[in-house]
Amino acid sequence: MRLFDKIAIIGVGLIGGSIGLAVKRRRLTEEVIGVFRKRSTMNKALKRSAVDRATMDIGSGVEDADLIILAASISSIPELARQAIRYAKKDAIITDVGSAKRWIIEKVEGLIGASRQVFFVGSHPMAGSERTSVEFARADLFEGSPCIVTHTSRTDRMALGRVVDFWKALGARVKVMTPASHDRSVSLISHLPHIVAFSLAGAVPKESLTYAAEGFKDTTRVASSDPELWADIFMANRDEILRSAKVFGRRYREILHALSKGSRSKLVGLLVKARLNRDRLTHGSTR
Amino acid sequence: MRLFDKIAIIGVGLIGGSIGLAVKRRRLTEEVIGVFRKRSTMNKALKRSAVDRATMDIGSGVEDADLIILAASISSIPELARQAIRYAKKDAIITDVGSAKRWIIEKVEGLIGASRQVFFVGSHPMAGSERTSVEFARADLFEGSPCIVTHTSRTDRMALGRVVDFWKALGARVKVMTPASHDRSVSLISHLPHIVAFSLAGAVPKESLTYAAEGFKDTTRVASSDPELWADIFMANRDEILRSAKVFGRRYREILHALSKGSRSKLVGLLVKARLNRDRLTHGSTR
Repeated sequence: MRLFDKIAIIGVGLIGGSIGLAVKRRRLTEEVIGVFRKRSTMNKALKRSAVDRATMDIGSGVEDADLIILAASISSIPELARQAIRYAKKDAIITDVGSAKRWIIEKVEGLIGASRQVFFVGSHPMAGSERTSVEFARADLFEGSPCIVTHTSRTDRMALGRVVDFWKALGARVKVMTPASHDRSVSLISHLPHIVAFSLAGAVPKESLTYAAEGFKDTTRVASSDPELWADIFMANRDEILRSAKVFGRRYREILHALSKGSRSKLVGLLVKARLNRDRLTHGSTR
Repeated sequence: MRLFDKIAIIGVGLIGGSIGLAVKRRRLTEEVIGVFRKRSTMNKALKRSAVDRATMDIGSGVEDADLIILAASISSIPELARQAIRYAKKDAIITDVGSAKRWIIEKVEGLIGASRQVFFVGSHPMAGSERTSVEFARADLFEGSPCIVTHTSRTDRMALGRVVDFWKALGARVKVMTPASHDRSVSLISHLPHIVAFSLAGAVPKESLTYAAEGFKDTTRVASSDPELWADIFMANRDEILRSAKVFGRRYREILHALSKGSRSKLVGLLVKARLNRDRLTHGSTR
């Protein structure tokens, strides 16, 4: 089913590349255009057939597109949005895939201003892995994974509906919420866990790493993520992450306190609650 | 290659069952005897052919064994050791698979006393998962995974050598160290990460769990582990875990501090160090 005539993807890494593959497999568009910053990435993306056409010129990349997806790293999104707005045709819909939404949306809505020549709807497909290159892109990356689409007082309802349909067509479980709600939920379910994983991986001396078993590998897997990329995400969602750190810290100190006091029953109670929560997530889908 | 004529496994869950399967596949013994507390587990183990012979009577289970493996939950090990020592034949070697070694070994060495009718060598195969039943047992569970074998001033060198050879025959990467060194290393690489994972899983409100992606699932996977079992492990290695919590806490607060001050370069530096550490562990072995 064709949802858009032409789709431009700016930044074709794991997420952008997977969108390209998924869109092509499901025939959601006539043509997928990839916009690249580096020739080496362009060649990799063409080799994977993640896009139909590739360019390093953002103007010619977006000019015919009905849907423009900003899939580059979060810190570059405002500038890419500025250029996309400039070259986009009238009524084009622009979306992004950034992990912190308020920071992005305030900037991009400011750029669009009152002109309303194009529409912007923020997205955050919660899929991916610690490997960010197009070489790891997969057409099924979004199947069954959550995707948050944001609305603000300035969001066009029609554009919102079309972006929701787009992610649903890729198999995602779409939820619409405000940028603030997004940032709060995601700080606790994704950003802070990344900080905790980085902290654990960073705390272990080299000589102890020899004894790392599957448990440690899983718990710290996301600490293999790109530091520059995640530093930008953390900075963009700083206030909510610091708030979530307090929530985590309370539970963590409760557990340590029960342990240091030798209150086994208290300790078991806290672990049981945690396990119940964890078991709400589908068993077996992670391995 | 036959290493022992008869091997008794007391407690046949994931670890005990995997030992049984591995020993049988590699023909390391003439007979594997399983000692059970519950008939239902016994039936499951026999169905999986994890043992050759099954009994609920510890005396008849261990009387002919050259190697007795205590593979039940940590809190039951001292009492099982007491019974095993009582019924074991002269010169039998007893080992265990408990995750905290000083607590176990002080008790068991005290039970053996000066008599020296049997030998005890502590082991900790660092394999397994959050699923502890014999139904998940695998003959290859120990292949390539670390296994710490402990020595103390009272450890018999010959018995130590035979226990080391046993785990090597199962494919484990064996490291010999004191119970104190074990407890320190493992508190940081396994016990504290479990506490952190339980804390994260326990801190997230139900409504946010909907947005959990693979990163969160991996980071908290071990929070699906058995709370009773892990409460006992935590209690048995309390002092070292509280010490490791300080090591983790320092790194965690450094990262949060850089974030709250908006020091991007400091933040990136800390994440880069963490990632280098994490990348020392083999890529791809966790998924």
